[in-house]
Amino acid sequence: MAQLNRQIVLDRLPQGALRPDHFRQVEAARPRPGNGQVLVRTLYMSLDAANRAWMQGATYRSALKGGDVMAGAALAEVVESNTHRLAVGDLVFADTGWQEYAALSADGLTKLPRIEPLTNLVSVYGVAGLTAYFGLLVCGEPRAGETVVVSAAAGSVGSIAGQIAKIKGCRAVGVAGGSEKGRWLVEELGFDVAVDYKAADFKKQLRDACPEGIDVYFDNVGGDVLEACLFAMNPFGRIACCGAVSQYDGDAPRAGPRGIPGLVVTRRLALRGFVVMDFEGQREKAIEDLQSWVQSGQLKVHEDVIEGLENLPSALVGLLNGANRGKRMVKVQL
Amino acid sequence: MAQLNRQIVLDRLPQGALRPDHFRQVEAARPRPGNGQVLVRTLYMSLDAANRAWMQGATYRSALKGGDVMAGAALAEVVESNTHRLAVGDLVFADTGWQEYAALSADGLTKLPRIEPLTNLVSVYGVAGLTAYFGLLVCGEPRAGETVVVSAAAGSVGSIAGQIAKIKGCRAVGVAGGSEKGRWLVEELGFDVAVDYKAADFKKQLRDACPEGIDVYFDNVGGDVLEACLFAMNPFGRIACCGAVSQYDGDAPRAGPRGIPGLVVTRRLALRGFVVMDFEGQREKAIEDLQSWVQSGQLKVHEDVIEGLENLPSALVGLLNGANRGKRMVKVQL
Repeated sequence: MAQLNRQIVLDRLPQGALRPDHFRQVEAARPRPGNGQVLVRTLYMSLDAANRAWMQGATYRSALKGGDVMAGAALAEVVESNTHRLAVGDLVFADTGWQEYAALSADGLTKLPRIEPLTNLVSVYGVAGLTAYFGLLVCGEPRAGETVVVSAAAGSVGSIAGQIAKIKGCRAVGVAGGSEKGRWLVEELGFDVAVDYKAADFKKQLRDACPEGIDVYFDNVGGDVLEACLFAMNPFGRIACCGAVSQYDGDAPRAGPRGIPGLVVTRRLALRGFVVMDFEGQREKAIEDLQSWVQSGQLKVHEDVIEGLENLPSALVGLLNGANRGKRMVKVQL
Repeated sequence: MAQLNRQIVLDRLPQGALRPDHFRQVEAARPRPGNGQVLVRTLYMSLDAANRAWMQGATYRSALKGGDVMAGAALAEVVESNTHRLAVGDLVFADTGWQEYAALSADGLTKLPRIEPLTNLVSVYGVAGLTAYFGLLVCGEPRAGETVVVSAAAGSVGSIAGQIAKIKGCRAVGVAGGSEKGRWLVEELGFDVAVDYKAADFKKQLRDACPEGIDVYFDNVGGDVLEACLFAMNPFGRIACCGAVSQYDGDAPRAGPRGIPGLVVTRRLALRGFVVMDFEGQREKAIEDLQSWVQSGQLKVHEDVIEGLENLPSALVGLLNGANRGKRMVKVQL
């Protein structure tokens, strides 16, 4: 009998909020790699708010549909190779889907350096760290002394973006839900101040946190927080549009913030959307910078590792509800 | 008795749509210029959609209030001078307000070359032409072969922006209200195709007009047209945010288009707001380019000149309702 491959299937597309029962676990035969392919085993699945956005429609990838093995990227290890480009034991970060094994074309796979702990390849040296790095530095263009606001600041990308803002000499203001997360941002990660978007006086908190206005807003959430930040932006401010998690866990996104495009014009703002893949050519320099900051202690890495393939659905639902601090991932096997 | 100065006062701020009866005409004494000031007489008042936005709140200038002489910029001639910087007979473009005479500080006033016809100093060599030029070329960065969509394309800025897009080798698509304006854009100004935003099948018209998607959108209107264009943008497209006239003639602007910021992220769009004053240092080169295009016949200038100070209110209301083609101005005296 063929060896098995446990998979999590998106049983049906959600109407409204995603729940664990939108998924089901199945067992399939372990795939065999074809010509030019590798068989990989999944070590750590990355969980990302974008996973939910893929259920809403086509984004930078085609939309998911009911019955698909749930899409997702993982740190994975090559266990069989039909290509000279990768050898057994090599590590890759790949769109394996939510399963233990995947047969993948070697095209577009890059061997990763074996940096320990391996989880760092999913967090600070992975998509989260690189997204924070390029989004803040290229789209945000922060200058020392400026005020940088980061939303979803306790999340994987936000927690790094805010710390990079500090490294660059900026005032870092984190927007997160609840006072406990806020304390963590300030006391553990060194943000100057945190603002609770769930508080009734959120807009006042934001104004008080930014007495000289906002120069750079790193937007992970869209919606009302983007709107509040728009109204506090300084002329010639920059908004790095990284994501819109406030709009993902439902049906179609709501209409955008008031003030678009009015404030964009009158304050001469620049909003720039980006996806981390666009910066592939500058990856090495980014990893070097990130490593040096981690080694000097300027950049603290916080990871939120959950055990077991079967926990992927609840881990994603929790992420969408803000349960995580730092990079959430699921350890599938090691 | 002092010489008189006819003025149009904004009697009260509009609730909802602006009407001529929100204004009233008064007579005041002609002002006397103080030290460092000039007295100017208004030749041609520029009418701009932004005039209405100033009634909604602070923009790049403070908000208007009931009882103010209506704000507005005009081509004006110096008739008395208490400064060595300007002489009697010099032409300036200045925020005179809606009145026959104004005493202005010479700071910030620049003597204009006496280009004939003088109306061109209000249209193609004035704010409209420079706004089209910098907005399209700096914020839009059009490349030959790309598709450029311009809204309010029959207006002062749009009619020039679309023609500059053609000069730069792009496909120019104009969005305007009604098939007659559309024919004018194509037959007179050389747009490749026009799209009627008032038509029931506007979105289909837009898609058909842009079979290869939109690379640059020059946005004068915001609202539903911005939303429709967002959904048709190509990856790495640029949106030059010039104005939001669809949102001006009412109370607070509505919420922004759906797709913000979602599409901005996934398609890596850049939205950039601008105001023409930001490019003051590059003005001479722009005027040179515009003059050479006008002289070669590549850039057609269309002006919509109305006679008489007393007609300013109805001329502005008409502009907000799309009654004009090309640059609308009111001849006050000559």
